[in-house]
Amino acid sequence: MSYFGFQSLTFSGHLFVFNNVCFKKYTNNPAFVSTSESDLSLQSKIEMLLDDLKWDDKGLVVATAQNVDTGTILMQGFANKEAIVRTATQRKATFYSRSRSQLWTKGETSNNFINIHDIFFDCDRDSIIYLGKPDGPACHTGSATCFHTSLDDLIDDPKNVKHRLASSTLYSLENTISQRKAELAVPQTGKPSWTKRLLLDNKLLCSKIREEADELCRTSEEGEDKSRTASEMADLVYHAMVFLAVQGVKLEDVFEHLRERFAQSGIEEKKNRARKVDQSAITKD
Amino acid sequence: MSYFGFQSLTFSGHLFVFNNVCFKKYTNNPAFVSTSESDLSLQSKIEMLLDDLKWDDKGLVVATAQNVDTGTILMQGFANKEAIVRTATQRKATFYSRSRSQLWTKGETSNNFINIHDIFFDCDRDSIIYLGKPDGPACHTGSATCFHTSLDDLIDDPKNVKHRLASSTLYSLENTISQRKAELAVPQTGKPSWTKRLLLDNKLLCSKIREEADELCRTSEEGEDKSRTASEMADLVYHAMVFLAVQGVKLEDVFEHLRERFAQSGIEEKKNRARKVDQSAITKD
Repeated sequence: MSYFGFQSLTFSGHLFVFNNVCFKKYTNNPAFVSTSESDLSLQSKIEMLLDDLKWDDKGLVVATAQNVDTGTILMQGFANKEAIVRTATQRKATFYSRSRSQLWTKGETSNNFINIHDIFFDCDRDSIIYLGKPDGPACHTGSATCFHTSLDDLIDDPKNVKHRLASSTLYSLENTISQRKAELAVPQTGKPSWTKRLLLDNKLLCSKIREEADELCRTSEEGEDKSRTASEMADLVYHAMVFLAVQGVKLEDVFEHLRERFAQSGIEEKKNRARKVDQSAITKD
Repeated sequence: MSYFGFQSLTFSGHLFVFNNVCFKKYTNNPAFVSTSESDLSLQSKIEMLLDDLKWDDKGLVVATAQNVDTGTILMQGFANKEAIVRTATQRKATFYSRSRSQLWTKGETSNNFINIHDIFFDCDRDSIIYLGKPDGPACHTGSATCFHTSLDDLIDDPKNVKHRLASSTLYSLENTISQRKAELAVPQTGKPSWTKRLLLDNKLLCSKIREEADELCRTSEEGEDKSRTASEMADLVYHAMVFLAVQGVKLEDVFEHLRERFAQSGIEEKKNRARKVDQSAITKD
């Protein structure tokens, strides 16, 4: 394994130390109780910033939780100011339940918390994204995401709608490959698809991965155009994804590795800056 | 370039033909006017299905538009039944404007339509995802997504908040690499980061890509564990992403290639089924 060697890779997950401190503080008490001076200061600061949001007539904004590594939309709820303050300090996605008229932290009963990495507002300031890492399935049904029913499937056959996750291209492809792998459990008839051939023949698969990596490189070495580069990269990604399926590794695990190793510019800078902001809180804890 | 060769890859983008027919029909008339019998039948069918949604007291559900290739959340609005019917038939993301009390199709003034690939409901049936491909920036500010302000950035320095997109790991990394590339435009001092070295030395970069592909394969050839496979795949992805940056190719272009080449299982099946449902509409047009 090579070392990536970003010179700027100097942070050490400090924010999570801060977050853990906050988490420890609040998890035993669902009410938002902040005792230290620095916590109160941070809370007040966040509350002041949130005054600028465009709250609806019930004092809410739409809050959408998204998986930081895959981009999958996990669930959608609503948040009042207190819910966002708690989310920003506890770093666990917290919503306001309109039916129960109370705050609720996703995971407080299931333990499937959504661990917050960032919170974004939209341009209208009436909608937020909780960008986070889920501890487990986001949906009460056990599904990774609450969005698992397609309207087009319903239109086709309302009585026989299957469970299908709202996934972007890469994860839909991962799912397809995974299905092909599952199909191999039963005896195959006819000529196997290319994916199945690759799944069954590791020597072939590895030779293809090496070949596709070489072909990708040759697009620059031989001065080919962007479209060809994109196409060769698609080939490499596909074959490497079949390899991951064989090995039982999820793309999400790969991207988690990437995230943990790399400072993603903005997040890196934020962490460095957050360190300063939260220094007193950490020292006091 | 190799041919992937999914045996099941038999659909021919039929749904898009259907969609184009619908699109042609409706774009010249913003009002929802459906003339043919089959259109009326489809519309009625969708309306009936939508009766099951949990509409709020204003007859709306939350509608979130997401990029089908990257998973990026583009924007969030609200939709009434008519907006969803129009979206499902025109295949352009359409919302209900609460301030203007009327339907609006994203892109009707900017031409930056969001071309719908799928529509998902959540488990509570009070929130939907418009999974689509944007023709251009989703935000009126020219930003790719409306979500470009981080609360953590605001907490740190409310007076100096930079534009930063809500991105999942892969796109944050892509952005970091892109920034490193941009920094090379000015004279560098000190030892360059590994990313910058790779950006400046194509021979080194290509040798690394070939090496990482080889190391990935060796994790199975040498019986290493899943964590090592994920780690080596992360290495390969990173180096290949630096290569894409050098060549000026976006990850989104790569995934678009993947999507266009592959049938993603569910979507593939849906298209095959949609073909049957919409056959009469197509024949009549």
